[in-house]
Amino acid sequence: MPHHTLQYPKNAANTVRRIGERGNYELEKIHGIVNSSLLLHVSFNPPDSPFPVTLPMIGQMGAFSRPSADIGDPMDLYIHGYVSSRIMNLTRNGVEEGMPVCVAASHVDGIVLALSAFSHSYNYRSAVLFGYATLVEDDAEKDYAMELITNSVVPDRWSHTRLPPRKSEMQSTSILKVKITSGSAKIRAEGAHDDKHDMENKETVSSIWTGVLPIHQTIGEAIPSSYNAVELPTHISQFTSDFNAEGKAYSTDVAKKP
Amino acid sequence: MPHHTLQYPKNAANTVRRIGERGNYELEKIHGIVNSSLLLHVSFNPPDSPFPVTLPMIGQMGAFSRPSADIGDPMDLYIHGYVSSRIMNLTRNGVEEGMPVCVAASHVDGIVLALSAFSHSYNYRSAVLFGYATLVEDDAEKDYAMELITNSVVPDRWSHTRLPPRKSEMQSTSILKVKITSGSAKIRAEGAHDDKHDMENKETVSSIWTGVLPIHQTIGEAIPSSYNAVELPTHISQFTSDFNAEGKAYSTDVAKKP
Repeated sequence: MPHHTLQYPKNAANTVRRIGERGNYELEKIHGIVNSSLLLHVSFNPPDSPFPVTLPMIGQMGAFSRPSADIGDPMDLYIHGYVSSRIMNLTRNGVEEGMPVCVAASHVDGIVLALSAFSHSYNYRSAVLFGYATLVEDDAEKDYAMELITNSVVPDRWSHTRLPPRKSEMQSTSILKVKITSGSAKIRAEGAHDDKHDMENKETVSSIWTGVLPIHQTIGEAIPSSYNAVELPTHISQFTSDFNAEGKAYSTDVAKKP
Repeated sequence: MPHHTLQYPKNAANTVRRIGERGNYELEKIHGIVNSSLLLHVSFNPPDSPFPVTLPMIGQMGAFSRPSADIGDPMDLYIHGYVSSRIMNLTRNGVEEGMPVCVAASHVDGIVLALSAFSHSYNYRSAVLFGYATLVEDDAEKDYAMELITNSVVPDRWSHTRLPPRKSEMQSTSILKVKITSGSAKIRAEGAHDDKHDMENKETVSSIWTGVLPIHQTIGEAIPSSYNAVELPTHISQFTSDFNAEGKAYSTDVAKKP
């Protein structure tokens, strides 16, 4: 089968309108932004309030029924939560198709400084997914999701924890599964720009610094707990140096693009 | 007048339920988290969809009618946007009191690694505000907000840009003002913890690394634009070194707390 670049269909909810050329609908791109975000912002509508509620949560794209799925294939989003929390209760008591949620993932990659304040911007990668959230009831699928989400924070961490999980641990933790209906990404990845009038004004150009301050998340020196009795293992030190090097390289590379 | 620590009243929307001792309702704390976030996640309900929509935007707490207001005083949230974008159109066509929005601001300060996967966590500072958004129509208030928001990204940047703004620039940019009705913060700022069973198991403790990987946003070396003709000025280099030092110190300090 030839490789297809799957895209989410455009509709009223997901279409990028402002600066449309920054929009992207490819599953691979959108899922990649979600999976590399330390936090997701999950929004839902409680029944008793005019306001949507947005919670920071941890999640990862997965495919329990087809573990060989590629990042560009249709996948579900698994989100970690607590059995007592409001979003979980709403989902449990919701209609069968699940609770409508919007999930946003955003990286800031740089501060773009231009001649005009109105041409200032960020380099960023942002993704949004829409879908219906239900509670995962199946034990095997819950195990799958817990391992998936734990390893999404630090690769290979699951096998380096105390196993197996206790029954009480599994009972007190809930997993939300979001069946995705649509999504989109929006990305800015380039240097500063200004309009012609400002660029041609020598006094302006010779008095205002323009360019990009690249930004990336950095992991500092690991701080052992008071009860730690172990040297820092490779699965952590390797992750830390990869994380730092990749973030620095990406934010700097895009800042240099014209 | 003696100094009072003002708090947002608790209600169904803003009360922190899971691990309530991490909750905080002080205006000073909540506004501080919002103001130090490079991105805010703004959620609203479009009329034609079951899903809330969440957009990453830039904003800052302000007090146009009382510029001397302290960060712990009642304030409005000003958010930067575009005149053509959907959230702005909805606000313009909305009811007089404004469009209900939820605004989330979140910092990840560390990855907390414990013996049990279920005791893993993040150090974080998260805040959420609920309120009614309207478009700012007054020109002087719009000027105030543009300067406020620009300087929130890089202190003192506004006076280092090409001024004054052109009429076309002001017309193509919109500012949302959110009148806040409630808010809350949730913070974790300490080292790893595990339950007694795991802590007392010598085999477990002697085989699993526990502690915190501190995380902070870092600004890398400034990348000048192709048309830049100026040495990096102090308002940028000073901001960069302050930003990096403060982020590193905070994430490391909290990781060391028992």
